[in-house]
Amino acid sequence: MTKPRLRDLGISLGQMPAGPLNAITDVAGVSVGLTTLIRDEPAVVRSGVTAIWPSPGIFTDFVPAGFHSFNGNGEMTGTIWLAEQGLLASPICITNTHAVGVARDAIVRLAANRKIEMAWHLPVTAETWDGWLSDAESFPVTNEDAIAALENAKGGKVPEGNVGGGTGMVCHEFKGGTGTASRRLSAEDGGWTVGALVQANYGLRNMLRCGHAPVGLEIPDEVVAVPERTRKVKPKTDQGSIIVILATDAPLLPIQCTRLARRATTGLAWVGGYGSNSSGDIFLAFSTGNKVPMKAKMIDMKMLGMDECSPLFQAAAEATEEAIWNAMVAADTMTGWQGRTVNAIPHDLLKQAAARYARRD
Amino acid sequence: MTKPRLRDLGISLGQMPAGPLNAITDVAGVSVGLTTLIRDEPAVVRSGVTAIWPSPGIFTDFVPAGFHSFNGNGEMTGTIWLAEQGLLASPICITNTHAVGVARDAIVRLAANRKIEMAWHLPVTAETWDGWLSDAESFPVTNEDAIAALENAKGGKVPEGNVGGGTGMVCHEFKGGTGTASRRLSAEDGGWTVGALVQANYGLRNMLRCGHAPVGLEIPDEVVAVPERTRKVKPKTDQGSIIVILATDAPLLPIQCTRLARRATTGLAWVGGYGSNSSGDIFLAFSTGNKVPMKAKMIDMKMLGMDECSPLFQAAAEATEEAIWNAMVAADTMTGWQGRTVNAIPHDLLKQAAARYARRD
Amino acid sequence: MTKPRLRDLGISLGQMPAGPLNAITDVAGVSVGLTTLIRDEPAVVRSGVTAIWPSPGIFTDFVPAGFHSFNGNGEMTGTIWLAEQGLLASPICITNTHAVGVARDAIVRLAANRKIEMAWHLPVTAETWDGWLSDAESFPVTNEDAIAALENAKGGKVPEGNVGGGTGMVCHEFKGGTGTASRRLSAEDGGWTVGALVQANYGLRNMLRCGHAPVGLEIPDEVVAVPERTRKVKPKTDQGSIIVILATDAPLLPIQCTRLARRATTGLAWVGGYGSNSSGDIFLAFSTGNKVPMKAKMIDMKMLGMDECSPLFQAAAEATEEAIWNAMVAADTMTGWQGRTVNAIPHDLLKQAAARYARRD
Amino acid sequence: MTKPRLRDLGISLGQMPAGPLNAITDVAGVSVGLTTLIRDEPAVVRSGVTAIWPSPGIFTDFVPAGFHSFNGNGEMTGTIWLAEQGLLASPICITNTHAVGVARDAIVRLAANRKIEMAWHLPVTAETWDGWLSDAESFPVTNEDAIAALENAKGGKVPEGNVGGGTGMVCHEFKGGTGTASRRLSAEDGGWTVGALVQANYGLRNMLRCGHAPVGLEIPDEVVAVPERTRKVKPKTDQGSIIVILATDAPLLPIQCTRLARRATTGLAWVGGYGSNSSGDIFLAFSTGNKVPMKAKMIDMKMLGMDECSPLFQAAAEATEEAIWNAMVAADTMTGWQGRTVNAIPHDLLKQAAARYARRD
Repeated sequence: MTKPRLRDLGISLGQMPAGPLNAITDVAGVSVGLTTLIRDEPAVVRSGVTAIWPSPGIFTDFVPAGFHSFNGNGEMTGTIWLAEQGLLASPICITNTHAVGVARDAIVRLAANRKIEMAWHLPVTAETWDGWLSDAESFPVTNEDAIAALENAKGGKVPEGNVGGGTGMVCHEFKGGTGTASRRLSAEDGGWTVGALVQANYGLRNMLRCGHAPVGLEIPDEVVAVPERTRKVKPKTDQGSIIVILATDAPLLPIQCTRLARRATTGLAWVGGYGSNSSGDIFLAFSTGNKVPMKAKMIDMKMLGMDECSPLFQAAAEATEEAIWNAMVAADTMTGWQGRTVNAIPHDLLKQAAARYARRD
Repeated sequence: MTKPRLRDLGISLGQMPAGPLNAITDVAGVSVGLTTLIRDEPAVVRSGVTAIWPSPGIFTDFVPAGFHSFNGNGEMTGTIWLAEQGLLASPICITNTHAVGVARDAIVRLAANRKIEMAWHLPVTAETWDGWLSDAESFPVTNEDAIAALENAKGGKVPEGNVGGGTGMVCHEFKGGTGTASRRLSAEDGGWTVGALVQANYGLRNMLRCGHAPVGLEIPDEVVAVPERTRKVKPKTDQGSIIVILATDAPLLPIQCTRLARRATTGLAWVGGYGSNSSGDIFLAFSTGNKVPMKAKMIDMKMLGMDECSPLFQAAAEATEEAIWNAMVAADTMTGWQGRTVNAIPHDLLKQAAARYARRD
Repeated sequence: MTKPRLRDLGISLGQMPAGPLNAITDVAGVSVGLTTLIRDEPAVVRSGVTAIWPSPGIFTDFVPAGFHSFNGNGEMTGTIWLAEQGLLASPICITNTHAVGVARDAIVRLAANRKIEMAWHLPVTAETWDGWLSDAESFPVTNEDAIAALENAKGGKVPEGNVGGGTGMVCHEFKGGTGTASRRLSAEDGGWTVGALVQANYGLRNMLRCGHAPVGLEIPDEVVAVPERTRKVKPKTDQGSIIVILATDAPLLPIQCTRLARRATTGLAWVGGYGSNSSGDIFLAFSTGNKVPMKAKMIDMKMLGMDECSPLFQAAAEATEEAIWNAMVAADTMTGWQGRTVNAIPHDLLKQAAARYARRD
Repeated sequence: MTKPRLRDLGISLGQMPAGPLNAITDVAGVSVGLTTLIRDEPAVVRSGVTAIWPSPGIFTDFVPAGFHSFNGNGEMTGTIWLAEQGLLASPICITNTHAVGVARDAIVRLAANRKIEMAWHLPVTAETWDGWLSDAESFPVTNEDAIAALENAKGGKVPEGNVGGGTGMVCHEFKGGTGTASRRLSAEDGGWTVGALVQANYGLRNMLRCGHAPVGLEIPDEVVAVPERTRKVKPKTDQGSIIVILATDAPLLPIQCTRLARRATTGLAWVGGYGSNSSGDIFLAFSTGNKVPMKAKMIDMKMLGMDECSPLFQAAAEATEEAIWNAMVAADTMTGWQGRTVNAIPHDLLKQAAARYARRD
């Protein structure tokens, strides 16, 4: 069953049109897979794995990529190699903090299973922490779970909300999760697509904005997800993390992907994230517009002209902003570990709050 | 004569209180000096230099500092040394792009004049480009101009708008300039002050937001500063730059200053800057809460606890946002080189635009 | 049984004296644990895990740390957090490339086992590839193996050669492995200790130097470890990796640890490593001279004066150089996967080669 | 008159052949210009400017470039832009520390003089400090001096020793200066050329190695350049700086140029430089194998295959090592400011010292 998205509530953000799916899969060749773990026995688990394939042939045909850590209280493996070569050489996993190793090694195992002719792999796996709703120290995510997410990846519509690595997330004190969105540039600007997929687990309610409306301040305390009095750590600092994966078909060099990745910061700021101390706000961007065969001695690349990059940057910011909102709107209220409940943001209250700030003549 | 500030229009931004001056000089020991060059002969000049002293004794008592380049189509000298030592060892200048060298060397000359016992200096000078309104290729800024800005620095109120290095700026297609603001943390959060000073010269009108309200879209084309038809380069990409200097009295380590500097990105996003291709969006933060004597063999430092940093980060974002607005609100319409005019944002239209998006019950 | 070390061959390197153990454990509080996996059934395994504790209390009392990637075709997890906070918050593991995830998660599990009051961990695990001698795709390293290395860590002498994560290494085409060394500064220079531990798996024979003697060129082809004709990939590019961990009791800030880490490059160069394309040459340095309690609101730190750092830097280079040699000298010839044999560097030939270049009047 | 080079003393370094000129100008299109300032009135000046053009058309046809700061107690302007775009857009100057601004602005002025159609420039100018032999605080380098170096650049043989920006240098306590060297890869490895040009002003005698032989220790105290008793600052820390410019015709992406730049560290280590605290060891590499027209909307690039990079890296290390030696060998003893004399390394003593460590059967 498809969950509602922000636009289904009559709210749209940004100035650029979305792609047909308004999803990262609007970038041709990109596929997404999910493993969602929701169970109460033997441990209370609200967790999972999200897998993103930049292209089906990524293990041998690398693509340019770059990353940015806006606030690095988090993990993204593979970044040492990304910083060196500027290439993405394998699919990406996003999962719970405690399962980074499992999911990272699972990518290696998948490559071994598939007899990829490369002796070693340095895959990208990122994380946010789901230990508020899930018994993270039961270490529920297995190699098989990650392999399943990698294997079941497909193009088309991307499930959102309480799915995959985003299953147990909390965002701006409401239920967070997995979300996606996209933007398409005008033909004059090249016609490129930029897609974003986020695992949103950060932020405080008081900072939450929808467009210009400070909707977080408009929603009464009693519907807020995480009662401050029961929080393990000081609320002001328990602000989680967000992983943003950006994809584009514009032909970028590695250094240009890094530039693109940095623009997730802008989209995040528009929703109300400013990288609080304990947040792991880590962004990765890749371009399917260039391919680098693993063993080539010389590779032909295309580089988008410098002045052509600005619309891509705006698209990245807008897609990130809307992907976060899609994660929140698609998420359902969830009760998990230790009986804790995190409420989804109430759609009616969100609409009312946004309406209060609607333009009037 | 004091120029109006955003708050004088009845508009306030952010959630945290400002310091007494709502200026970078709210951080004790910080002083600001300005040289403003406005003349029509022998060349049309709308330029200047802004000098910022972190402390009177900065040449021998260094302070922790860090920088972030959100979009590096600009220059900030001294960053190689900042990245290595994490210390600021001299006052800072901000000026026109073509005058970076002059102002940089002027800091060295000032040190020589003052018989500072240090054989070499690696000072910080940053820039934005004023060549729309000023005949930049007449190279108007002199060593004496920069020395004057350095020498006349003082605490207290900071002039804003068309002054100092900000004299010839254009921001979101309106007249930009120099602006400042500050935030004070609650006693519970440590009572620290964060101040920002910006030289704002970036952005397109369509992205301009005030308190996230899209006010740029509300102001009619005919009052916009830079007629697209006369622009030298493609408007969508000619989006200038912004330099942000952040000061705090919170005792930070160098690595923590870098974290603080990165938060200017968030404040910039809130006004509508996303780092377009040609923008030099470069931020520096320093802490007066620690002092490093040049010749000490061992130095006692204080490090603010990690979880204490989040309120500082929010303060940095808010102060940056308001400093940009103060630059724009204080700026006057200016006519300059080649008869070009850049209009100040009309205060009445700004207030009307903001009112259109105000909360209603 | 203790393996011989370079000095046991009558060869010493560098200008500064070693510490009492000539090991990383000369830095008070540092301990090292090892799990060595050598077995032929069910798969041929020559692998293991090396664990390094900066201090016994590291999970709650963090220490300043920094890293440098000289050539980043490798993995070190936790670097995003290191870059952000400049603190090391857990013990370190070094293992085989395919086991990075296992060992990384094992550190988290150990923290959970010990009821550490921190909700999440971002531990450092690094790797080099042992797939020439070990059936890496049998994924032999388990959570228990890594936990064992972490649990059995101790101070004092450190086993070298074919032990721990270094079990299956190849270095400059001879048998590589785990090695360590240290340097002690003069009292005048502060009396600080710098220790290095390396997992050495890089390099070609033609570049190998011992001091100034190009000993690699002096040792006949027939004793070289890896016959070029049987190598899976082009020999000139199959040059593995090296991980270097540097410890010091000098009180450094995080940014100073990063500086120290960078000096491993110099020691590596002196042995003949220049960071070939496929090498993961990644270095980490930490200081036990400062402690940062996880929950402190304000921390007193000491910062070593800038000019005091040079002797530390030389010490880091020298300790790295000798640690690599200790790894090679202690290593025994090993036969492993697919019947491949990698010869230890013959001590007699090494001595002869060095003697050929001895100083003569 | 051509100065002797290391090879003229019968000493050769490294394993790869040099190009025809053994100079950076072996890379087609690269030219070097010099302004040398040696005078005693009105101030004692031993200074100058070195200019390097990557190609004649660099102002409008950019080339990929990257930099590395091994120890950043120095300045290289333009690195913020290099980090962002990975392109070099103007010629490079190297000069004295106090003249960075002058030389930087001179590049802008040259562009203005030539009516280059670009509104702003962010040129690269680097420095080392010549204040031991030159009255640096007389600020002798002028805009005209820098313009002259830029204008007189040519291909072919490159003067070495006490010329250009290297005029007043001190290296390993002997007279330093400007030096160059090159390496040519075998046809099998692509036949590419790598050239280095250094401005060498760093290091202590005790660390000086020639072909790794510790020749610095072999030269008697009485011929050493800088008597410790007269040094202004503690000798162990007064170790100057080195700038290395690397050029190649191999078609590299920007990120690959950064990798190449990092290899100067290795060559530097081989001579005895380890980046002492006060050293500005900053390296830049550019590739003439790709061109990026300023205004292109899409650019065709070539990317050298990953595994093809290792020989380039070795070449960069070797060229750097020999360029430093060429700077020292070509330098003449110089007497300068305050009557100080810095001795050139005596060629006979150098040959004797090297011979003492030569191979014997």
